[in-house]
Amino acid sequence: MSSRFDRVHSETIWRGKIFSLGRERFRHHDGKEVVREKVWHPGAVAMLAVDDDHVWLTRQPREVVGVPDSLEIPAGKLDVEGEAPLAAAQRELAEEIGMRAERWREITSFYTSAGFSDERIICYLAEDLSPAPETEVEEDERIEVVRWPLSQLDAAIAACEDAKSLIAMLWLARERVRRS
Amino acid sequence: MSSRFDRVHSETIWRGKIFSLGRERFRHHDGKEVVREKVWHPGAVAMLAVDDDHVWLTRQPREVVGVPDSLEIPAGKLDVEGEAPLAAAQRELAEEIGMRAERWREITSFYTSAGFSDERIICYLAEDLSPAPETEVEEDERIEVVRWPLSQLDAAIAACEDAKSLIAMLWLARERVRRS
Repeated sequence: MSSRFDRVHSETIWRGKIFSLGRERFRHHDGKEVVREKVWHPGAVAMLAVDDDHVWLTRQPREVVGVPDSLEIPAGKLDVEGEAPLAAAQRELAEEIGMRAERWREITSFYTSAGFSDERIICYLAEDLSPAPETEVEEDERIEVVRWPLSQLDAAIAACEDAKSLIAMLWLARERVRRS
Repeated sequence: MSSRFDRVHSETIWRGKIFSLGRERFRHHDGKEVVREKVWHPGAVAMLAVDDDHVWLTRQPREVVGVPDSLEIPAGKLDVEGEAPLAAAQRELAEEIGMRAERWREITSFYTSAGFSDERIICYLAEDLSPAPETEVEEDERIEVVRWPLSQLDAAIAACEDAKSLIAMLWLARERVRRS
C-alpha cells in the first residue's frame, strides 16, 4: 500500500461567501492519480465552556438542515484575517454567550467531513468563566443561550444532532467519569 | 425569538459526482429572510464494529485534507437508490473490512457541518462479528484494515482527526466505563 500523494493540479469552480468549491488532482506514489471535488472552508473554533455545574450551549436555527433549534456548543468560523484560533475562540465566546474564561485548553481538533471538505474545527475547553464586557456581546435574535446542568449532560448528548457539539460533550462526559 | 422558517427559494449552482451545490432562501416566521449557500450530500452510514477485545478501524488517505493515513471507523455514502441505511451499513461493513455482524443498533446520528452542508451520518454499533463471504469484499489497495485493541482506545481517540470516528469512539469509551 502506498498512500502518500502529491497534489498535481487545483482549480477553483466557484467562490462563495463562506466556502468555495474546486477540483484537485492527486498523484499517489505508486503513480496512480485521483480527482477530488472539494470544498474549501476557512475552518472554525468551538468552545466547551464549563462552570461548576453547567455547560454553556446555544439553540439556533440551522436552515440548511431544516432544524429550527439546533442544540450546539458556541462556535465561530476562522474568517478574520491574521487572527489566531485561540484569539478567535475568546472573541467568539464573548460575542455568542457574553462570557470570558480565565483558563483555556485545546482538547481536540478534527475534520468535519474529510472526504470532500477541508473544514477543520479546533475545540477548546474554557473554564473559570465570568461575564464579558457588555460591549463585546453580538446581538443575534436567533441564538438562544442555554446554561445546561451537567447533571443532565446525557440528555444534551441525546438531543444533539451537531457533530462538533457531540464530540465536545462526549469528551466532557468521559472526563467527568475519570475525575469522579 | 422566532426560529421557525420556510424555504421559499432553491437553486442549483453546480452538480458534482458526490455532492452538489446550491443557494436557498428561507423566510423566518417573523418575516425576515436569510440566504444560505448549501452543499447537498446524500448522507452516509458509519459502523462501530466491536468484538470482545477490539474495534475495527481503517487507515486511508484523505487527499482533500492532506492526511495520508486517516484513522477512521468504516463508513460509506448513501448513494445506492432505494437502499435503506441499515442495509447500506451491512453492505459497507462487508465491503470495507470483510465482516458481517449479527447484532446491529443505531447509536447516534448527526450533521457533520450543519451551517452549510446537509450531510447526515447515521452511526451503528455492529456486534457478534464473523467473516463475511469473500465475494462481498471490495478491493481497495488504499484502505488498510486495523483491528485496534480496546485497551488502547484512548490512543485511537487521540490519533483520530475524523469527526464521525471521534464521535463513535468517544461514545464507546463512555459505554465501556458505564458497563465496568
